[in-house]
Amino acid sequence: MRQAAIIGIGHSRFGRRTDVNLGELAFESIREAVQDAGVEKKQIENVTLGSAGGWYEESLPAVVVNEYAGFERVGTMRVEAACASGSAAVRSAYLSVASGEAEIALAVGLEKMTEVDTLTSVELMGRAGSYLWEFENFGMTFPAYYALYAVAHMKRFGTTEEDMARVAVKAHRYASMNPLAQFQKEITIQKALASQVVSWPLKLYDSCPITDGSAAVVIASEDVARRLSDTPIWIKGIGVSSDSANLSRRDDYVGLAATVDASRKAYSLARTTPRELDVATCHDCFTIAEIMAYEDLGFCAKGEGPRLLRDGQTEIGGSIPVNVDGGLKAKGHPVGATGVSMMVEVSKQLRGEAGKRQVQIKNGTGLVHNVGGTGHYCYVTILSRDR
Amino acid sequence: MRQAAIIGIGHSRFGRRTDVNLGELAFESIREAVQDAGVEKKQIENVTLGSAGGWYEESLPAVVVNEYAGFERVGTMRVEAACASGSAAVRSAYLSVASGEAEIALAVGLEKMTEVDTLTSVELMGRAGSYLWEFENFGMTFPAYYALYAVAHMKRFGTTEEDMARVAVKAHRYASMNPLAQFQKEITIQKALASQVVSWPLKLYDSCPITDGSAAVVIASEDVARRLSDTPIWIKGIGVSSDSANLSRRDDYVGLAATVDASRKAYSLARTTPRELDVATCHDCFTIAEIMAYEDLGFCAKGEGPRLLRDGQTEIGGSIPVNVDGGLKAKGHPVGATGVSMMVEVSKQLRGEAGKRQVQIKNGTGLVHNVGGTGHYCYVTILSRDR
Repeated sequence: MRQAAIIGIGHSRFGRRTDVNLGELAFESIREAVQDAGVEKKQIENVTLGSAGGWYEESLPAVVVNEYAGFERVGTMRVEAACASGSAAVRSAYLSVASGEAEIALAVGLEKMTEVDTLTSVELMGRAGSYLWEFENFGMTFPAYYALYAVAHMKRFGTTEEDMARVAVKAHRYASMNPLAQFQKEITIQKALASQVVSWPLKLYDSCPITDGSAAVVIASEDVARRLSDTPIWIKGIGVSSDSANLSRRDDYVGLAATVDASRKAYSLARTTPRELDVATCHDCFTIAEIMAYEDLGFCAKGEGPRLLRDGQTEIGGSIPVNVDGGLKAKGHPVGATGVSMMVEVSKQLRGEAGKRQVQIKNGTGLVHNVGGTGHYCYVTILSRDR
Repeated sequence: MRQAAIIGIGHSRFGRRTDVNLGELAFESIREAVQDAGVEKKQIENVTLGSAGGWYEESLPAVVVNEYAGFERVGTMRVEAACASGSAAVRSAYLSVASGEAEIALAVGLEKMTEVDTLTSVELMGRAGSYLWEFENFGMTFPAYYALYAVAHMKRFGTTEEDMARVAVKAHRYASMNPLAQFQKEITIQKALASQVVSWPLKLYDSCPITDGSAAVVIASEDVARRLSDTPIWIKGIGVSSDSANLSRRDDYVGLAATVDASRKAYSLARTTPRELDVATCHDCFTIAEIMAYEDLGFCAKGEGPRLLRDGQTEIGGSIPVNVDGGLKAKGHPVGATGVSMMVEVSKQLRGEAGKRQVQIKNGTGLVHNVGGTGHYCYVTILSRDR
């Protein structure tokens, strides 16, 4: 494969964005990414939009985005991998460059979820579970799915509600340092524990919010990256896996098999190991998901996630800082934008441009973990400062 | 780029498929394509599903398909480029192989449109136009969009309703020779002209039907293709373009600029010209669309489409046989499946396996033209018997 690197990053403000329409919201990050890359818009050879859709009325968001951003005659498509749509878009742009089809390609992640009310949103997402069986028959939605995992993890490993609350407290602390995050206020463990139960043991503060937002990355070939960028962030490997939508068919409920599989593939492609990572973004749609991700990605042994967290190892200064941008939990989770937002954050960290949230970069390697559904899809991407 | 070839093709019966669910419908073509390729399912490294969605209740069709087909832990995603989603899926699988990511990848096209009633379907498609302006304000749906083009073409070039009816008669004739086609009966020009007006000058027989169906292709690297296949069909070039969703912003209404642009890109990549093509499938969602495609793809000069048709040049035995599988018009148009179905047909023709519909193969080159919306997206793919 040809080498390819992220040479431009852009990120909208996340939150309730009634001030912009779909095209405008996407353009906030596209403009920034294209400027950051130092390219002209006309040099972008193709665009991939990651968006799950269903919330907004336009049924061809890729066309809306291309038109608003002024990509006339530029080839485009939308990709969907549920909440991992953003990573799938990055993979598509990467393959275009890695194959030699394009020298410069753009991946955009976008979702505008507050176009519908929260209950409709929860239903729309719930339908992405096992629609005909678990959703229709048992009324399962995503808080309930992840609650099953939380209960199993508690029973098997003694994980507590307080452990989960710690994930939320960490997320809000870093979000308060990220001006683009949806939530800007710190919370306490007490506040998290006292919040409304959504699906026991998961409470309001265990759950990511409904968010509008976009993020974009410009991906270039080695020749272009070396010419245009002083800080190219190389895509070293993308591992992808999938799993049954029917939770009744899963082997256990203490981790996501798709994460284990996708991360093994990614580490192998990138010829690296969890120990060499300086920073990671993990798919914390619910707090238990972040704890399971530590284990499934190999940051610690199975069942040791809560201890890793309690020891502060996933904070800035720890062995593997995770979601120091606020994560899905507090930065927000505009479904299709999330994976691209993660790429932006890890790129920023590896470039050393994360300001007061900057982690220490030793090996120059970072990881993006992006899950669709309850591990129906999983995309793991390894990024590196070094070619 | 690495070379890549289609080494396996599969195609479900098109029509009203209330006898199967979404997974079963996809599996009909997946099983056939995998068997045709002579590979084991476990050799498939990734799956891309082309499906526009919105008709069926499952919101993650790629997951449903992967699970039903038994692709455990295999990476997947869904791609959407409206009615060109199938070609976009083929491009994704192609890039995976051409980049070196995979040796063998699968592209599946799928749509199950009869899950909703016809009016809902027409509305769902209409929303894919210019949603906030032309759909909401003027009630434009796709028959109306293409009717604007038909009227402009009639006024500028003297094209007649009878010319358009000829496209339908040709489509039904070839569909009657294709056991997988939705319509199995020939029609006459008189019958087409006497059919109900949908949006003048387009009538019932100028319009493609609502269809359920799937198609699949297995794409392999040169090494694998040479080892496993006696008849690999090489992907020589994929050109992609886009256009404004607002018809009010188009330059004219006698052709699709995205088709002209995408085909130029494809011819250039494949180093070929329209003259060297032995066969083509064109996006005939309405009869006028096939006539415009002849011109936009360079099969004849602008305005000469009706004459090319009248002279029988786009029939078997003519200079460039088009849609001899029945086309969208009579084979049917299950949105996401259509582009993949076109790849299956052109591959079959280039292999010399099209039976009584076989065209004469001289140069061994064919073209797939797949449009999304009214040229919002356009994908043109050149296939060849020769590496």
